Amino acid sequence: MVDVDTALTAPAAAAAADVTVVSVPIDVTEEVIRLVGPHVPERGLLMDVTSVKEAPVAAMLAATRASVLGTHPMFGPSVHTLQGQRVVLCRGRGDEWADWAARTFTARGLVITETTPALHDRAMSVVQVLTHFQTQVLGLTLARLGVPLDETLRFTSPAYVLELYVAARHFAQSPELYGPIEMRNPRTGEVTRAFGDATRELAAVLASGDQARFSELFAEVGAFFGPFTSEALEQSSFLIDRIVERA
Amino acid sequence: MVDVDTALTAPAAAAAADVTVVSVPIDVTEEVIRLVGPHVPERGLLMDVTSVKEAPVAAMLAATRASVLGTHPMFGPSVHTLQGQRVVLCRGRGDEWADWAARTFTARGLVITETTPALHDRAMSVVQVLTHFQTQVLGLTLARLGVPLDETLRFTSPAYVLELYVAARHFAQSPELYGPIEMRNPRTGEVTRAFGDATRELAAVLASGDQARFSELFAEVGAFFGPFTSEALEQSSFLIDRIVERA
Repeated sequence: MVDVDTALTAPAAAAAADVTVVSVPIDVTEEVIRLVGPHVPERGLLMDVTSVKEAPVAAMLAATRASVLGTHPMFGPSVHTLQGQRVVLCRGRGDEWADWAARTFTARGLVITETTPALHDRAMSVVQVLTHFQTQVLGLTLARLGVPLDETLRFTSPAYVLELYVAARHFAQSPELYGPIEMRNPRTGEVTRAFGDATRELAAVLASGDQARFSELFAEVGAFFGPFTSEALEQSSFLIDRIVERA
Repeated sequence: MVDVDTALTAPAAAAAADVTVVSVPIDVTEEVIRLVGPHVPERGLLMDVTSVKEAPVAAMLAATRASVLGTHPMFGPSVHTLQGQRVVLCRGRGDEWADWAARTFTARGLVITETTPALHDRAMSVVQVLTHFQTQVLGLTLARLGVPLDETLRFTSPAYVLELYVAARHFAQSPELYGPIEMRNPRTGEVTRAFGDATRELAAVLASGDQARFSELFAEVGAFFGPFTSEALEQSSFLIDRIVERA
């Protein structure tokens, strides 16, 4: 393990190992890949764990002649079990090592999704960029409206507490992690524009008191979610019961 | 119980009862209060269960000389227990009936928050208007980005599933309920403006790649949430474990 406080250099470690895993902040990922890539033995594997995949996989393919595998573990250090957690795999070069990695992860209970870097980054523009962005917008709005949190909690419904948990959880974590995830996704501009458009449209509907249009928009979203709405109602009611039980 | 399919008229029921509870859609609440209010006996109680409180309580005080109590049950029909659920009480006139209602609710396990109609509506502009609005913006953005839900679910993290449950749950419910809650709160314009401002500011920070400013905004929200962030991380991790366990 090469870290900031080890004497072993990254190129020396890569030269000595079969498998080199690059696990560094997004902003320096490509730089580190260019540094270690040429030292990975051709029979070895170079892999990364970055939250975006197009740029790192391209950088790995360019930096080494070894096998290349992009991965994205879809969970953070706060999970209490690996069982059922998900890892995305993007094969770059060399199926033998990719198959080995897939078997190794599966044996530990992880669930694997294989895809291309482009499809990964598109899905993440929704799964990560959109959801993190909306949480940040909610948080900033709350902070600036000037209603103290304690005052709102006196009036809390279980569903509000659940939403606040989801939002506040985000701000217990690192902005240095989330900033690059959002800034380096190629579709972030598209996502924030769509979010801004939806904000303006819904605000105008509320201001005009147009219930018919409000119901139309509600139905449009309901159609997008489809049968998932029923599952969500059942699952979130289960979770809300757990919150009430714990209170 | 007077309903659309009963022969008993609302004024006749009010005249015959000690306690009259108005439980009708927000849009017709004041009209029904004006209809039944004059028939409630002076020794009786007129109460409502509307999700806004300033206008209905004012209407009840004007329509009757009986005791008046505004209430807002902070839970919907999907809860599986009344134990620990919250009801807001706004005393209008007559402490004896208000005390009776408080005792009756408490005896059934409900938790009571007493406040004024103005403070209630201010808190609800956050607890209901802001959270429902942000859920609707997220839903509409998802529907319009054109990435199929199933494709995003292939890449899901437990936290994303939790957020989707919270969002999709909303659209399994009635737009005729949520529309008036958002349209009739006196602070809705203020809330949607603040939300739009936060959207523009955060989108600009992401577009410029300004990590320092991003971290400042993160810290601003973290300071607003205060110690609640730690509770949220702990509680939401507990819930995420329950999701993983159930999957």
